[in-house]
Amino acid sequence: MRNVKLTVAYDGTNYHGFQEQRGTGLATVQEVLELCLGRLAGRRVQVTGAGRTDAGVHALGQVVNFDAAGWPIPVERIPLAMNGLLPGDVVVTEAREVGQDFHARFSARAKIYRYTIWNNRIPSPFNRLYSSFWPVPLNDEAMSQACDHLLGRHDFKCFQASGATVKTTVRTLYRAEVIREGTLVHFVFKGDGFLYNMVRIMTGTLLQVGMGKASPDSIRNLLESRQRAQAGPTMPPQGLCLEHVEY
Amino acid sequence: MRNVKLTVAYDGTNYHGFQEQRGTGLATVQEVLELCLGRLAGRRVQVTGAGRTDAGVHALGQVVNFDAAGWPIPVERIPLAMNGLLPGDVVVTEAREVGQDFHARFSARAKIYRYTIWNNRIPSPFNRLYSSFWPVPLNDEAMSQACDHLLGRHDFKCFQASGATVKTTVRTLYRAEVIREGTLVHFVFKGDGFLYNMVRIMTGTLLQVGMGKASPDSIRNLLESRQRAQAGPTMPPQGLCLEHVEY
Repeated sequence: MRNVKLTVAYDGTNYHGFQEQRGTGLATVQEVLELCLGRLAGRRVQVTGAGRTDAGVHALGQVVNFDAAGWPIPVERIPLAMNGLLPGDVVVTEAREVGQDFHARFSARAKIYRYTIWNNRIPSPFNRLYSSFWPVPLNDEAMSQACDHLLGRHDFKCFQASGATVKTTVRTLYRAEVIREGTLVHFVFKGDGFLYNMVRIMTGTLLQVGMGKASPDSIRNLLESRQRAQAGPTMPPQGLCLEHVEY
Repeated sequence: MRNVKLTVAYDGTNYHGFQEQRGTGLATVQEVLELCLGRLAGRRVQVTGAGRTDAGVHALGQVVNFDAAGWPIPVERIPLAMNGLLPGDVVVTEAREVGQDFHARFSARAKIYRYTIWNNRIPSPFNRLYSSFWPVPLNDEAMSQACDHLLGRHDFKCFQASGATVKTTVRTLYRAEVIREGTLVHFVFKGDGFLYNMVRIMTGTLLQVGMGKASPDSIRNLLESRQRAQAGPTMPPQGLCLEHVEY
């Protein structure tokens, strides 16, 4: 086995998420990558992704690995070769040979997600695919205070989509930050793992705080409640981006 | 007549330009605006645009005017009313009542266009619709020097698409600038008028200078030649944006 790690950026607008959905006929990023690698390698290639982004969710730093045994192309030429075949909305930004034991998903130590809001009364035609439109003014300071309550090791069950099943809902958040860049507001989260829809629900909850509908301190009770119904709404997918995976 | 001026931003990706193309069945921004105004006014409304952007070209500050006589909506509510009906890629950013003699096209004193390059070996999935991919390194200083030769009143015939017919090809350029913002390079032009494809050909020519294939001073001879064939290639539409119209 010759284990190759790829860093992949994609505009998720036209995809039904990252992961292959056998038999559905829906285009996924994984399928597009495997099709491209298959053409280059002359045989079927399977990739393993670090995270399963949902339909419409983007990535700047998704990571995949695959077995490139017997493959003629030098690793450093893989991005150029793949980008020449891939559609414009999927780009390989880096390729590197890694150890046998590297696994894009299980070796990941932390992930960074960013949720972006277009915070203006007038929507933007250029940011509509990469942010959520939010015309109501926001109290950034209150949202920052609320973020501090999210930091650390907690049971994040209240931020998990109802119906999701997972062994434990305890996760550690290393970073939770609100960054304003003019009319854009970025919610940046770094954690050792994320529950299903966790970033989109945390952002929806922080926006409630930003509008004054909940206090920053209410986050503490919310976490303790472990009740999805107590948290804010799930924000739409197009504002979400998987920024980076740390190994 | 009640003359209303609208400022309109649009993502031109999915449109066959600004101007209505009767009988072609192709969607244009003008048709979308007129359809929307027609629904609000309950009668056919015709708009006049400041500039005819081509298929795939964007606008941040396109300007149109129309006759709103007998229309019940207060002018300041027009953006919200229209944006509620318009598709997400066309946005009305401002509405203002103007004098009878205001004409979006003929009253325009200057226009600002911006052409954007994604200057990196690796393309960007998020900027692909709003910039041109240009992997070759560029000499910004040389391009800036070339820009200086474009400033002022000149016969810009060499930068006009061959086959275009217009009374005079003399125009005045008030601003010609190269602005680098990380991997993005913006070419900004302000002029009293622009010939067909002028910005796209000027940018293509400046890029030749940036790659060292022509000297900054060569622009002088080029202008004098009045030969389209002596200028650089026409850059693709998606990097171009009509930024602002001055009255």
